[in-house]
Amino acid sequence: MLEIVQKLLAGDRRALSRAMSLVEDEEPEARQIMREVHPESGKAHVIGVTGPPGVGKSTLVDALAAEYRRTGATVGIVAVDPSSPFTGGALLGDRIRMQRHTLDPGVFVRSLATRGKTGGISAATGAVAKLLDASGRDIVIIETVGAGQSEVEIMKHVASVIVVMAPGLGDDIQAIKAGILEIADVFVVNKADLDGAARTARDLESALDLRAAAAWVPPVLLTVSRSGEGVKELREKLEEHLAFLKREGGWEQRLARSARAEMEDILARKLVREVGGGDSWQRAQDHVKAVAAREMDPYTAADELVQAYLERMGAGRGRDR
Amino acid sequence: MLEIVQKLLAGDRRALSRAMSLVEDEEPEARQIMREVHPESGKAHVIGVTGPPGVGKSTLVDALAAEYRRTGATVGIVAVDPSSPFTGGALLGDRIRMQRHTLDPGVFVRSLATRGKTGGISAATGAVAKLLDASGRDIVIIETVGAGQSEVEIMKHVASVIVVMAPGLGDDIQAIKAGILEIADVFVVNKADLDGAARTARDLESALDLRAAAAWVPPVLLTVSRSGEGVKELREKLEEHLAFLKREGGWEQRLARSARAEMEDILARKLVREVGGGDSWQRAQDHVKAVAAREMDPYTAADELVQAYLERMGAGRGRDR
Repeated sequence: MLEIVQKLLAGDRRALSRAMSLVEDEEPEARQIMREVHPESGKAHVIGVTGPPGVGKSTLVDALAAEYRRTGATVGIVAVDPSSPFTGGALLGDRIRMQRHTLDPGVFVRSLATRGKTGGISAATGAVAKLLDASGRDIVIIETVGAGQSEVEIMKHVASVIVVMAPGLGDDIQAIKAGILEIADVFVVNKADLDGAARTARDLESALDLRAAAAWVPPVLLTVSRSGEGVKELREKLEEHLAFLKREGGWEQRLARSARAEMEDILARKLVREVGGGDSWQRAQDHVKAVAAREMDPYTAADELVQAYLERMGAGRGRDR
Repeated sequence: MLEIVQKLLAGDRRALSRAMSLVEDEEPEARQIMREVHPESGKAHVIGVTGPPGVGKSTLVDALAAEYRRTGATVGIVAVDPSSPFTGGALLGDRIRMQRHTLDPGVFVRSLATRGKTGGISAATGAVAKLLDASGRDIVIIETVGAGQSEVEIMKHVASVIVVMAPGLGDDIQAIKAGILEIADVFVVNKADLDGAARTARDLESALDLRAAAAWVPPVLLTVSRSGEGVKELREKLEEHLAFLKREGGWEQRLARSARAEMEDILARKLVREVGGGDSWQRAQDHVKAVAAREMDPYTAADELVQAYLERMGAGRGRDR
């Protein structure tokens, strides 16, 4: 076992941090690290927190982390900010947050700026969460900005999904029905001291009524994360949800979903690399040029590249044997 | 050639719209459609418009479309809204916009809500843009909300990238340096009638000075898209950029980049499907379970699945022949 893995499994924060950097930067050691930590992961309660900008997700995550600390649990936070190329706000916020928790070794915060990575934001987030999990954190919270597809991918790696709203978004509840109701396990109306919180909660509840009766009906909670109001109830609901998952088989299902998402990503990267010939796609240069020049369509090109790969691997001619 | 392709190549709007739906829904015919339109694409000037929420991208895109129409060019607009699960705003805006252009057959507007699609928002956007291109639109404008990774992927399919800012975001210019300067071909400070526009433009320009001298230095333009101020200059700059690309070889490079992005996507989907055994991953069920139960790590599982695939295809044993 790699020394860095031994150390991070023993709870060494510097080794954990270093392993995250290696994974984020897609260094060669990353694969071996992820291989070795895998058997030690799958224990933490991984919680996803998502919602539109401005609803106070970061503050809520902080308050929830503090609440979990109060019960003695250790916490890891992964803050994903896919919008950082424009706002940059999360990075600054993260530094402030880091300072807040810096004296408590029970909280480990990591922000991810994975824009442009080949592996994708979802793969990197899943890997960093798994490192926290393997390092012995009881609770891993993944916080993302509400930006569509990446969220849905990221949420494949979590056991409980919290969707955070705030008063004043009430008119948009109609739109929410489209996609979020299916992935939310707990709804939180944060900033509940503002006007309209009760109405937002009611709107969410009546939208939920339209859902087919399910074994777990997502509760709608009110919080004021700055004062901590409602955060204890949120933690209790999350523990209820965890118990429900473990009782009803959902826990294994979610681990399987996460495993499959990870395997799909590994497979896609591995195969595209092998077929295309490394990062530079040197083997496929002629095909890329032919497709760009409209002399060949990309599906035919993909078929030919796969055929050439199979022949390199000893197949191709022998398909009928 | 499919009848729907014949019709859309001839400029039939209903066939174009129907083809887009088939592609968006990943229907079986989509592959054949995309195959057949490919040779007819690669002619339009595909322009990407991105920037943070609230800077007036949609209004600017409308004004730019109207400006191109004034010169007699036909226009297709693809509005990508990865944040729609939360805001829903784009859909409504799109309907209003549709009504505005509804009497002008020279403008075709399509909004994409691709959240959760396996192929990804970038692949669907590229395909819809290609359909517009093949249908004979001179200009195809892709509008996206600024949300990180998806943007960077989407921008692989465009020839010119416009990054839109607005006054008041000035403090965040530092953050912009990180990622956007590299992809922008033209900067627009929209809402230039508000205070601070000149300062935002200056900040952008001095950030640009930090870039290594390049053959094309992105201009910084001021627009007020509601009144149309500066939009003619924007169109002229885009035409200059197009001429620059064609003169300096950038046009072929960008077509190749788009071809490669499309091929990578097709390859990844094809191979993962073949290795995993279709959408249900029935062949890989045991491996998924073993990984979820931590009896096997996902890299070993991926290796074994690829090996089994190669053996099915006639390779494997014969690798050394």
